[in-house]
Amino acid sequence: MERRTSGVTACTAVVVGIGPGDPGMVTVQALEALASVDVVVGFDKGERAAELLAFRREVLDRASAGTPPRLVTLDDPQRDVDGAYAHAVRDWHLARAEVLERFLVEEVRPGARVGMPVWGDPALYDSTLRLLDELNARGRIRVDVEVVPGVSSLQLLAARHGIVLHRVGGSLLVTTGRRLREGLPPGIEDVAVFLDRSCSFTELGDKGWHIFWGAYLGMPGEVLVSGPLGEVAEAIVQRREALRRERGWIFDLYLLRRR
Amino acid sequence: MERRTSGVTACTAVVVGIGPGDPGMVTVQALEALASVDVVVGFDKGERAAELLAFRREVLDRASAGTPPRLVTLDDPQRDVDGAYAHAVRDWHLARAEVLERFLVEEVRPGARVGMPVWGDPALYDSTLRLLDELNARGRIRVDVEVVPGVSSLQLLAARHGIVLHRVGGSLLVTTGRRLREGLPPGIEDVAVFLDRSCSFTELGDKGWHIFWGAYLGMPGEVLVSGPLGEVAEAIVQRREALRRERGWIFDLYLLRRR
Repeated sequence: MERRTSGVTACTAVVVGIGPGDPGMVTVQALEALASVDVVVGFDKGERAAELLAFRREVLDRASAGTPPRLVTLDDPQRDVDGAYAHAVRDWHLARAEVLERFLVEEVRPGARVGMPVWGDPALYDSTLRLLDELNARGRIRVDVEVVPGVSSLQLLAARHGIVLHRVGGSLLVTTGRRLREGLPPGIEDVAVFLDRSCSFTELGDKGWHIFWGAYLGMPGEVLVSGPLGEVAEAIVQRREALRRERGWIFDLYLLRRR
Repeated sequence: MERRTSGVTACTAVVVGIGPGDPGMVTVQALEALASVDVVVGFDKGERAAELLAFRREVLDRASAGTPPRLVTLDDPQRDVDGAYAHAVRDWHLARAEVLERFLVEEVRPGARVGMPVWGDPALYDSTLRLLDELNARGRIRVDVEVVPGVSSLQLLAARHGIVLHRVGGSLLVTTGRRLREGLPPGIEDVAVFLDRSCSFTELGDKGWHIFWGAYLGMPGEVLVSGPLGEVAEAIVQRREALRRERGWIFDLYLLRRR
């Protein structure tokens, strides 16, 4: 049953996972979806901007032989990185919702299909779907949502290392650096860690782990390191810091596997 | 450094994730990889054969404008479903390794590139990479491995339900029906469950969960159900059994989210 909110403009957000950073890892359906929309909207990514915008641009060019869809880049509100984590994220989501809402209400015709490309897959550590929930909760505009899945950087990490992410019949915990520092639940033998600016793997008391680490996956300058945690942890910390300084930004993640 | 094992023939296995069941959810790179190989090999899937083979056929046709790569289908050894789980899987992997080894040694020229399409993504609940490890451990043939990631059915489940797989900054446990029945580690609030023939969600003592369930994701006849577990569990059990009987096979998975 279609929801109807009289007097409120409506549009459709087509949230499209465009993969981890290699334009070849975009699905056929993602390209078709981006070719079908009236306008594409994305947030500026600050320091990562140049490379991520170039990647997005290349995907959009592939999507549209000749006539790329109109791309509008919105200013990403400043995120208060010093605040308490949950509050900082919440404020940032709200500020983003206001920016997107203004754009959709003022500059998009009712009924338009608005493409929202997402790095990786929209279901893992991306805020776009929550942003749209926020918009619908505010009620100034009704946004119908369609999602096109994409390959996640986690899957590319596994592919590059040639591994399955869990044991035979086993489990995988997907988590963040912050949660890893808070401690792992008992019985966890395989852990994928996103969003870890602090190299939390160095703080694990138990050293019986193997680590499979990757940075800039799918992009030029991709780096892979793997080995027993005790032997390679320090090398990863140093490599990571050198890369981040040299390139101005870093995206990395890793799998920890108990030996 | 390249490994060399003198006197042992070698080939390259190109393990390609072809997505959850919709030929549009194949990546550009997967299509290019399948177009580049000398031969494509896959196992017969028994009762699921007709539909999964048709899906694979359609992907291969897309990969190759006009001249599809040669496709060889190997008989999948019978899996002893009554045996203890770990042993049954182990025996089945060994039997598969023998079948694949014979094919590669006897029917593939040294140095060939052999495509191995995998439903979904090779890093999640697929045995192809372990099979190749087994082959290399046996040492009769050396198989170099390249992996092309694909969209997993888990990502499509999330896309169809329009959800992120975890809370803000939270974790996701990816596991099996068998492990779910053994109990969840403390603190887990989002659980994705694969390989659950027993509808293990009915055995959860705690009923404070929401379930997002999907079957035949990406394929014709895709079915989605979501709701508070206590309200929809029985409907899912009945729906699942009816679908399985009608179609002869079922592939389903779900996310449990603590409310």
